[in-house]
Amino acid sequence: MTAAPQPMFERVALIGVGLIVSSLSHAIRRRGVARSIVGHAQSAKTRDPALRIGLVGSVYATAAEAAHDADLIILCAPIGACGRLAQDMAPALRAGAIVTDVGSVKGAIVREVGPHIPAGVHFIPGHPIAGTEHSGPESGFAELFDGRWCVLTPPNGTDKAAVDKLAAFWRACGSNVEIMDADHHDMVLAITSHVPHLIAYNIVNTARHLERVTDTEVIKFSAGGFRDFTRIAASDPVMWRDVFLNNKEAVLEMLGRFSEDLTALQRAIRFGEADTLHRLFTEARATRRGIIQAGQDTEAPDFGRRSKS
Amino acid sequence: MTAAPQPMFERVALIGVGLIVSSLSHAIRRRGVARSIVGHAQSAKTRDPALRIGLVGSVYATAAEAAHDADLIILCAPIGACGRLAQDMAPALRAGAIVTDVGSVKGAIVREVGPHIPAGVHFIPGHPIAGTEHSGPESGFAELFDGRWCVLTPPNGTDKAAVDKLAAFWRACGSNVEIMDADHHDMVLAITSHVPHLIAYNIVNTARHLERVTDTEVIKFSAGGFRDFTRIAASDPVMWRDVFLNNKEAVLEMLGRFSEDLTALQRAIRFGEADTLHRLFTEARATRRGIIQAGQDTEAPDFGRRSKS
Repeated sequence: MTAAPQPMFERVALIGVGLIVSSLSHAIRRRGVARSIVGHAQSAKTRDPALRIGLVGSVYATAAEAAHDADLIILCAPIGACGRLAQDMAPALRAGAIVTDVGSVKGAIVREVGPHIPAGVHFIPGHPIAGTEHSGPESGFAELFDGRWCVLTPPNGTDKAAVDKLAAFWRACGSNVEIMDADHHDMVLAITSHVPHLIAYNIVNTARHLERVTDTEVIKFSAGGFRDFTRIAASDPVMWRDVFLNNKEAVLEMLGRFSEDLTALQRAIRFGEADTLHRLFTEARATRRGIIQAGQDTEAPDFGRRSKS
Repeated sequence: MTAAPQPMFERVALIGVGLIVSSLSHAIRRRGVARSIVGHAQSAKTRDPALRIGLVGSVYATAAEAAHDADLIILCAPIGACGRLAQDMAPALRAGAIVTDVGSVKGAIVREVGPHIPAGVHFIPGHPIAGTEHSGPESGFAELFDGRWCVLTPPNGTDKAAVDKLAAFWRACGSNVEIMDADHHDMVLAITSHVPHLIAYNIVNTARHLERVTDTEVIKFSAGGFRDFTRIAASDPVMWRDVFLNNKEAVLEMLGRFSEDLTALQRAIRFGEADTLHRLFTEARATRRGIIQAGQDTEAPDFGRRSKS
């Protein structure tokens, strides 16, 4: 693909400075998607590196200054901070601009951000399903979104041209795009992302508090499977706290199903039900094959990771 | 490291043909650890590739033929098959030989295999904590054990020279070696390997049976965390069935702790306890750092895996 002859957006404002912002900046510049990229970060400690690395051409201490005159504004902050940021920048938004976000919960964004967006501004919540366990301005890379899915959840009555333009933006950044209802998104992500993270955090926590197995043993012998869980349990604690506080109903529902199934599995182990275990374990392989066929994971054994030694 | 001037063993018999056998064969040949490698597999369908790829110099239809005249015999079969294999080969074992295994549960191996081993033969259960989600004769590679831990659980009174020799063998194959009591091993592995696998199988199963989220959605949007779990849920079903049937007590104990902690976390979400969530999620990062510092995982984001696109 060659660079677009004309940038899709004049001024993109990235609100926040973390993994997604830094990856977005790289991806936008890779294809010349915007004429200029500006940013906002609350603390000088993140504003400085954002400028120094060249993630943004200008960086501002307020969201309003960054959003001023921008035709695309992307909120990239923990969900709990988005309402306040939207309120701050609302007076600076120009008619026809698109406001979106990248949060892992969409119902809460509709509720918290929606009311602050002035008439004439297009509000289209979004969620690129991509990430790593790292955070901060230096953690991003242009390829983060390549081949992944970005879900957009435009409220009823959203301008179709604005949705198409935002979808084209994400495609230019490497993503596939899917349109979905916000509540359905939150249900899907509860099982594909939120509950997996919760379980990963939980088993790491359980392992840390055992009396009969030491922390050193857990770490030394983690290659038997445990270490796979610690990767996602190393994700940003503030971001994840906000996900669970803001997608409570869907997470509790999926967690209920998970626990019910785990109890059945526990019973099968207790009573030595060999066939049940074998059938269940065999079925799980089909899902893995599906994910690899869909290009959502590598087929290389062990994720293709290499040991240090 | 250069090849040993004199092989450590004359004839190593690998009983079974899967990931561990094929990796062991590569690792043994890499350092010239044995003068010859022979094997046993039940079906011609695995015997043929084992010979063709050169994993073994000779392959036999019975364990007894493979074990005959061997000075090191390594049982590499699902735990439930090891007792019978030991019984079959017992009459062929020569005095002074070492019999070991690679199973993920050690108490059961002591109980099932131990009674068949004749006096004068050294029986030292072992467990290399290394693997991938792939199985079969073509899935192995010489580096599988490099930098990983192999746990040996010699019963009381085992000949020290034999233990030292087996430890030296594993070190020559790239492993670190730890000596441990069989019951303690089973407790440690329950939390670092068995319960993680069970949870991974379980969430894949839960996701497959939801009414409100389709299998296609689970697969498409798996990059949010779910796909990490599917890797270990793709492991060999027979091997894992036998692990759970044979390490019941330790798995049920650890599962009880996991569920207790998960219930507390669920309650914290229900009542919006932001500080509890944040503290827990922050603590989990330390374990990840420990694992990376101990060389048991890569520090590259996302395990260093690359998307296909």
